[in-house]
Amino acid sequence: MKIKGKLYRTIWMDGNTIHTIEQNKLPEEFEIISIDSLEGVANSISTMIIRGAPAIGAMGAFGLAQAIQKMDSPTAEDIQKVYDFLYETRPTAYDLQHGLDFVMTKTLTETDPSSMKQLAMESAQAYVDASAEACRKIGEYGNSLIKNGDSLLTHCNAGALATVDYGTALAPMRIAHENGKNIFVYVDETRPRLQGAKLTAFELHEEGIPHAVIADNAAGYFMARGDVDLVITGTDRVAANGDVANKIGTYEKAVVAHENGIPVYIAAPISTIDFTCPTGNYIPIEERDQNEVLDINGLRVASKGSQAFNPAFDVTPAKYITGIITEQGIFKPGELDKINR
Amino acid sequence: MKIKGKLYRTIWMDGNTIHTIEQNKLPEEFEIISIDSLEGVANSISTMIIRGAPAIGAMGAFGLAQAIQKMDSPTAEDIQKVYDFLYETRPTAYDLQHGLDFVMTKTLTETDPSSMKQLAMESAQAYVDASAEACRKIGEYGNSLIKNGDSLLTHCNAGALATVDYGTALAPMRIAHENGKNIFVYVDETRPRLQGAKLTAFELHEEGIPHAVIADNAAGYFMARGDVDLVITGTDRVAANGDVANKIGTYEKAVVAHENGIPVYIAAPISTIDFTCPTGNYIPIEERDQNEVLDINGLRVASKGSQAFNPAFDVTPAKYITGIITEQGIFKPGELDKINR
Repeated sequence: MKIKGKLYRTIWMDGNTIHTIEQNKLPEEFEIISIDSLEGVANSISTMIIRGAPAIGAMGAFGLAQAIQKMDSPTAEDIQKVYDFLYETRPTAYDLQHGLDFVMTKTLTETDPSSMKQLAMESAQAYVDASAEACRKIGEYGNSLIKNGDSLLTHCNAGALATVDYGTALAPMRIAHENGKNIFVYVDETRPRLQGAKLTAFELHEEGIPHAVIADNAAGYFMARGDVDLVITGTDRVAANGDVANKIGTYEKAVVAHENGIPVYIAAPISTIDFTCPTGNYIPIEERDQNEVLDINGLRVASKGSQAFNPAFDVTPAKYITGIITEQGIFKPGELDKINR
Repeated sequence: MKIKGKLYRTIWMDGNTIHTIEQNKLPEEFEIISIDSLEGVANSISTMIIRGAPAIGAMGAFGLAQAIQKMDSPTAEDIQKVYDFLYETRPTAYDLQHGLDFVMTKTLTETDPSSMKQLAMESAQAYVDASAEACRKIGEYGNSLIKNGDSLLTHCNAGALATVDYGTALAPMRIAHENGKNIFVYVDETRPRLQGAKLTAFELHEEGIPHAVIADNAAGYFMARGDVDLVITGTDRVAANGDVANKIGTYEKAVVAHENGIPVYIAAPISTIDFTCPTGNYIPIEERDQNEVLDINGLRVASKGSQAFNPAFDVTPAKYITGIITEQGIFKPGELDKINR
């Protein structure tokens, strides 16, 4: 991704040091931090310096590889201890387990310490590169849906900052823009945590892609006026039947888009599809702290005596979804069994 | 309405002094201010100490009556000057003109100074009482739609604070609660100006009506779960064909409610129906300052380089509306010609 005119990934290694963008300070400040310890890696995940499933997976892979470099003589037991410690930082993040598994499995195919260290580093880098490449391919496939002059709408941040690079929902917009297509993006601010206003708007601004932030309430207004040609969002989990869990509000936008004949695409690497989950009814919905709604940036906005409900995600039934853009191509929600896993 | 256990109207007169609730300070502070001058009346409207069409109409009526009391010998010309001065404070507010017209017309049926003064005061009070009574009747009719145990959803603030008393959308909830029905209200926070979180939640808390504030994005989630039995909102203008203009986001909520088989009612005095406006396409939509989206409580939340679009209202086509609750009863959107005007 481009930031201040330079190309960055969300996370990378330089020698045995991990570098990542401090996302808690965005969009106000752009700061790159260096991580040299296991505690630093764990802290970066638990305090959300890095967030977004693919990005967390990359941090897990690099974090485990870094710890293995520091061991005098790595053993399966020592590696498992680091694995367990990192896994506990965000146990519900599916991709964290992916990244850790990939590095541990590869490393344990050797027994010689220096070969193990080399394999750990190579496999972590390979995992991270493959993760970025999957997003780039999502961008290429998604780009085929975008015509010159199109206006798109997106919800939350499924951008490069949530992945190693390119993003999921934002990857097609990046590729379309790189290919010289004129596009415009309506950015839902995405209450309560405002990831649209804070992160998606930041990425699009840095990339030079024309856009405007809107209150989530205004999405339907622009759809009904015929101003939106295409909706693309990311997802946290896709069920086997094509139901999609994503940031709260995605369901509303999909229903209103469907009502207005606007196609709705979900961009996701295949690792996000949970083939063991039959439908969206089986996806648990996290209820987060009510103060995310009652307060904004730490300041109370709601009436004092009132409580709030704060579901963080909702499920959009497959019938409202036109297609799922993956690194293997675009699939209808009812055709996920065609995917090579 | 009940505030801190006492009954209040939004605006009332005591002798020749006007009293009103300082709404800019809500929900943090509850302050009643006294107004004794024409400048004070104009200022209360232009700085939004008082807001909401029916409440502004009441301030106009009382303000004109107060000014007439202060004239040595009122003339049609002097009264017209005050009328014009007050009308200019918010020229788009339909009800302001209503209130001013009512008092001026009645007053000018007399020529004797003391009779004119008496008529001005009596007609202003009659106008304000009739305005409150219309809302109470809306509450009674709306109450007939609410069953014991129902959960309702509302958007923005169409409460007592926007009227003389009772409110429009909140009037049925007040009456249902007074009648001992157990109800629960989902309060859309209503970005960008957060009138739901700030004012509706305040009113419901003071009234002791169980409720929770939700991010606007979460309304669809609760509807899809079957947690919402009924949607009631207010409106800024109803077209002759039943299309309804209201706070941005109303359209989305109505579409999603319709998709889930949940009835959507609009509560409004008949004065809000514009029989000269054939459809919603003829209702102009105000575009407000983009900083209402980019900032929250004066603090920048969005990425710095980004712009915002900020339409303040949207139009909900009649097909998504189950009925319009008025002081004459409940009408289907296609049956507005049955109303006595």
